[in-house]
Amino acid sequence: MIRAGIVGGTGYTGVELLRLLASHADVEVVAITSRAEAGRRVDELYPNLRGIYDLTFAEPDAALLAGCDVVFFATPHNVAMHTVPELLAAGTRVIDLSADYRIRDAALWSRWYGEPHASPELLERAVYGLPEVHREKIRDAQLLSCPGCYPTAIQLGWLPLLAAGKVDPGSLIASAASGASGAGRQAKIDNLLSEVSGSFKAYGVGGHRHLPEIEQGLAEATPDPVAVTFVPHLLPMVRGIHATLFARLREPPEGLQALFEEYYAGEPFVDVLPAGVFPQTRTVKGANRCQLSINVPQGRDTVVVLSTIDNLVKGASGQAVQCLNIMFGLPETRGLQQVGLLP
Amino acid sequence: MIRAGIVGGTGYTGVELLRLLASHADVEVVAITSRAEAGRRVDELYPNLRGIYDLTFAEPDAALLAGCDVVFFATPHNVAMHTVPELLAAGTRVIDLSADYRIRDAALWSRWYGEPHASPELLERAVYGLPEVHREKIRDAQLLSCPGCYPTAIQLGWLPLLAAGKVDPGSLIASAASGASGAGRQAKIDNLLSEVSGSFKAYGVGGHRHLPEIEQGLAEATPDPVAVTFVPHLLPMVRGIHATLFARLREPPEGLQALFEEYYAGEPFVDVLPAGVFPQTRTVKGANRCQLSINVPQGRDTVVVLSTIDNLVKGASGQAVQCLNIMFGLPETRGLQQVGLLP
Amino acid sequence: MIRAGIVGGTGYTGVELLRLLASHADVEVVAITSRAEAGRRVDELYPNLRGIYDLTFAEPDAALLAGCDVVFFATPHNVAMHTVPELLAAGTRVIDLSADYRIRDAALWSRWYGEPHASPELLERAVYGLPEVHREKIRDAQLLSCPGCYPTAIQLGWLPLLAAGKVDPGSLIASAASGASGAGRQAKIDNLLSEVSGSFKAYGVGGHRHLPEIEQGLAEATPDPVAVTFVPHLLPMVRGIHATLFARLREPPEGLQALFEEYYAGEPFVDVLPAGVFPQTRTVKGANRCQLSINVPQGRDTVVVLSTIDNLVKGASGQAVQCLNIMFGLPETRGLQQVGLLP
Amino acid sequence: MIRAGIVGGTGYTGVELLRLLASHADVEVVAITSRAEAGRRVDELYPNLRGIYDLTFAEPDAALLAGCDVVFFATPHNVAMHTVPELLAAGTRVIDLSADYRIRDAALWSRWYGEPHASPELLERAVYGLPEVHREKIRDAQLLSCPGCYPTAIQLGWLPLLAAGKVDPGSLIASAASGASGAGRQAKIDNLLSEVSGSFKAYGVGGHRHLPEIEQGLAEATPDPVAVTFVPHLLPMVRGIHATLFARLREPPEGLQALFEEYYAGEPFVDVLPAGVFPQTRTVKGANRCQLSINVPQGRDTVVVLSTIDNLVKGASGQAVQCLNIMFGLPETRGLQQVGLLP
Repeated sequence: MIRAGIVGGTGYTGVELLRLLASHADVEVVAITSRAEAGRRVDELYPNLRGIYDLTFAEPDAALLAGCDVVFFATPHNVAMHTVPELLAAGTRVIDLSADYRIRDAALWSRWYGEPHASPELLERAVYGLPEVHREKIRDAQLLSCPGCYPTAIQLGWLPLLAAGKVDPGSLIASAASGASGAGRQAKIDNLLSEVSGSFKAYGVGGHRHLPEIEQGLAEATPDPVAVTFVPHLLPMVRGIHATLFARLREPPEGLQALFEEYYAGEPFVDVLPAGVFPQTRTVKGANRCQLSINVPQGRDTVVVLSTIDNLVKGASGQAVQCLNIMFGLPETRGLQQVGLLP
Repeated sequence: MIRAGIVGGTGYTGVELLRLLASHADVEVVAITSRAEAGRRVDELYPNLRGIYDLTFAEPDAALLAGCDVVFFATPHNVAMHTVPELLAAGTRVIDLSADYRIRDAALWSRWYGEPHASPELLERAVYGLPEVHREKIRDAQLLSCPGCYPTAIQLGWLPLLAAGKVDPGSLIASAASGASGAGRQAKIDNLLSEVSGSFKAYGVGGHRHLPEIEQGLAEATPDPVAVTFVPHLLPMVRGIHATLFARLREPPEGLQALFEEYYAGEPFVDVLPAGVFPQTRTVKGANRCQLSINVPQGRDTVVVLSTIDNLVKGASGQAVQCLNIMFGLPETRGLQQVGLLP
Repeated sequence: MIRAGIVGGTGYTGVELLRLLASHADVEVVAITSRAEAGRRVDELYPNLRGIYDLTFAEPDAALLAGCDVVFFATPHNVAMHTVPELLAAGTRVIDLSADYRIRDAALWSRWYGEPHASPELLERAVYGLPEVHREKIRDAQLLSCPGCYPTAIQLGWLPLLAAGKVDPGSLIASAASGASGAGRQAKIDNLLSEVSGSFKAYGVGGHRHLPEIEQGLAEATPDPVAVTFVPHLLPMVRGIHATLFARLREPPEGLQALFEEYYAGEPFVDVLPAGVFPQTRTVKGANRCQLSINVPQGRDTVVVLSTIDNLVKGASGQAVQCLNIMFGLPETRGLQQVGLLP
Repeated sequence: MIRAGIVGGTGYTGVELLRLLASHADVEVVAITSRAEAGRRVDELYPNLRGIYDLTFAEPDAALLAGCDVVFFATPHNVAMHTVPELLAAGTRVIDLSADYRIRDAALWSRWYGEPHASPELLERAVYGLPEVHREKIRDAQLLSCPGCYPTAIQLGWLPLLAAGKVDPGSLIASAASGASGAGRQAKIDNLLSEVSGSFKAYGVGGHRHLPEIEQGLAEATPDPVAVTFVPHLLPMVRGIHATLFARLREPPEGLQALFEEYYAGEPFVDVLPAGVFPQTRTVKGANRCQLSINVPQGRDTVVVLSTIDNLVKGASGQAVQCLNIMFGLPETRGLQQVGLLP
């Protein structure tokens, strides 16, 4: 049994880890920390977990966490980077769901996240946890950095095209939308139901923190310079990311459906939909799955890829469990066979 | 392996059965029927099931269904009653999620459902599938009639009080609300998002078909005459039932919390919340669970029980699987350990 | 032209006052205050008002406000009671949308609002702004206290029955539900879209601050003791209140529809729906209107009144403007002819 | 007083016309037709209109309509084109909210709408009712064809850039999203709340009927060939369109904000937001307004225009009333001063 700890367990990725791990045969959650809720039962905060976990939030404590085989950081950014070095030194493996180790260039990271990186020496060691690209490296990762939600949906949508040289990487356009749970469980007026419900808007148009991560990931797939125009939007709903991805084709649009089907053949959590079927966020709700659709409207020179995930599952906690499975030599689908909740 | 068939598999209770049975170790769905969609793959209609089932909708066919160990009817009312006799004769056990066999009095049934009952001789044999009340009878049931969604939430909320003689059964008031999935997957203007979203209303105030079922079930728990004023409401959301139940106390309000906790001790799917904690439909979303809260506002003479379920799970398909487990001698929780999807 | 000021203009009742007064021919908003947003343009916070108002939030300042003919308090409770005495002394009329002057008994007020009342001597002078009951007193009010949202919907629904002695006032049951805007524009986790959307729950079951106000108002209509069991619920939507009101009939249920139609004949903002038509919150969205439906399910001894309002209009800012019209001798419907926004 | 008729008054653009015209001082609705609801009171179908209109749906009848000064067609496509010739012959002016006269090329129209055009001789005479472009022609229009909702939002967002030659018209990309009311009030499973709520999807990716209209309109503004990749999406909400428009800049991105402000100076219903402010659909809800934001992310070579309208107001009925005002020599803002309903 793998002994797991969770740091920052009061947020949405924390409770989602608990939901997924409840059905994981090889993992036991032995510690969960929260400064704000220390001493409170987990199922008091999250009554959906009553009868499933007998856990109480603890103060973050290095000794407690170092006793785990693996520790998940379900914290906001700028937290993990202060604690991870100590844990790694103690031999505990770390899966960081935050942004702290996603960008390999410490200066670039600082520019987007607003402070110096606290453990830049680890950036090289951190493995970027997108299994469809880095499966081999993930096996031996001591420090696993989970991709962001938008970057997961967007990279999975464009990688086959870039790897095959089908599109111009210098003029990529991503129009993506997320449910409000992507903003986390924070007391902000902007995320009130009365502010968000029944409305739709773009945000971060001038520059969103996921942009450098997206460009870094895509650049690995092509020798040409990558430039992405990325516009995120806020959806009046809780879960789900939908990315609508536009790229200029370098050649006639034949064979794109087959290209995607071959690229993702054997991938348990990427589902290339039949031609003409468009994904909906609800068909992946609660499931660790990315559904993709490839289109060339009017047979012109622009390919449109539609990519959907549940931001809290394949975009966060599910992907983290998928990486854990790889890191510990388990079947990759262990604990991840939830079916999308529809309707 | 239990071979199961589903009649009327295109509706919401049908797809929910498929979702739940996907994680059931002892059941294989071998047939699913739909007149309208015959010949179409199930995962084409429900892409959340891609890679999980390799099934195609078939025409309803008695021989096909008679080859199953058990057949679920996930049909509108007035369908099952025509086919069930033949299946029972063939030795197939039946779990009917529709209303056809819920009311034991054929004349009363006809008055509420608008036509003569097609197989009234079976009403006596049908076992009402509320395991918390009829567990023993369910074991041997050949024809299992699943309770309606409102009746499940409401009976579970009042039964302990009635059984203990704590309240006056002649003046019960149920103000309940349901998500729109309770109305099924039918093309009706009244259920359009543009008609329902951002609004709330009562309906069926003059008389809802679940009323006689509720009164019949409650009457079994008390020697006194039962009369319920039942007002259902439509919520601008998909899943969930919340019942707010008012009853006049016959004696001082001491000990009610303990009464409920004892009544439901050992029940795997009824969760009596601690005093002062109010249930939310989201904490049972996707889970086969009823959460209850017992209150006596201002310490006056009225007890208020709050009862929540997911109408498609404990209110329909989950309860059906729970009954199947009992009928086939399996652990009652088999295939029903989904955790509520929160947020 | 009536010169109006608004204190606490950043909340939802503040912006709703601005929306309504934009079409009011006789009122000019000359001052709007907010400590937090002082110096910021109103249409920067509320871009729906661009081009409509040329206003900037000011620091709350007694001299500024005393220069107005009337000042609206759109503040949380426990604010107005500190400032109102000074304004009244300066001859400015006050319309308080908060709870500060709704309860005539200062001790009772303190028990529910948690601190001593700062200006108890004004409680007698304050006029309770429910025009359908207190129209005459409102004309001369210097200090007008606007009813709460739930109390408006609930009193309008029960008053005709109580006034006519038709029901037992000692066993009234109100099951009511409100959109999330009723909780105001405050940064609280409980009101995040991710917490509220797609879910439904009761709250304040043990005792909601609107209860004493409801009982006080109803008690004026009957010589018998009044006791209300009041359970509020939170709806996953922005605007609207729906109250489902149960009362025990003292006599056979004849003539109730006519009773209501006569009671509200001539009332411009109370609409008794035809028998069998149930109100929806969407038909009053954005409109200063209460729609009522009277029912006696199964012809038994319980009358069910359904009452809907927009909590921000007839439940707050619209009712405040209606009172202003009466106070200043204007036609009561001036500035209040918005049609409900449907769909 | 202008005597107006409405054909097809049961749909959402019909009831929205009634809402807007209720506050229009110069228009009286004298006839409203519906085959399905003939004989039923309008306020029975739409209780938000109780007390505001005393109208009954009539059978569509040429004589009845010919007695009007102006007739609105709030019908699905393929209806108006059969009746309009007769009305024009009778001297009645027509404002068609449907698609029948939007495309000037009858063959192109037939290709997208699936049948021969019934009155192709009128396509030349029809004036395209986008006042910001065709105000002069609208004055004398006998047959006014209202733009579609997506085409309104998209054209207003791109026209200043195309007219000034700032962008390459051959590679335009529009990612747009609409509330469900855009699909009309039709009994279709795809538009049920249970299918749409809490989810997001693209649709019509292969080709949406608004595409030729968009390209036709944009082509008038530039001598170069226009090609648009247009991907519409369905939002889980009722009202609102948000278009995110991408175009390749031909020159450095200076002066774009000023360009837009000048282009729309004096336009009463187009609001260019300050730099850095992004529009939300809720700030235009219920209002006849388009709000625009101009951005050049990272200062690169792609300009991103955000454009929002209420699809039922500036995208349909509000624009129709705006055109009526121009056609009848009234102030253009008459009856259109509703403030966006926020929250």
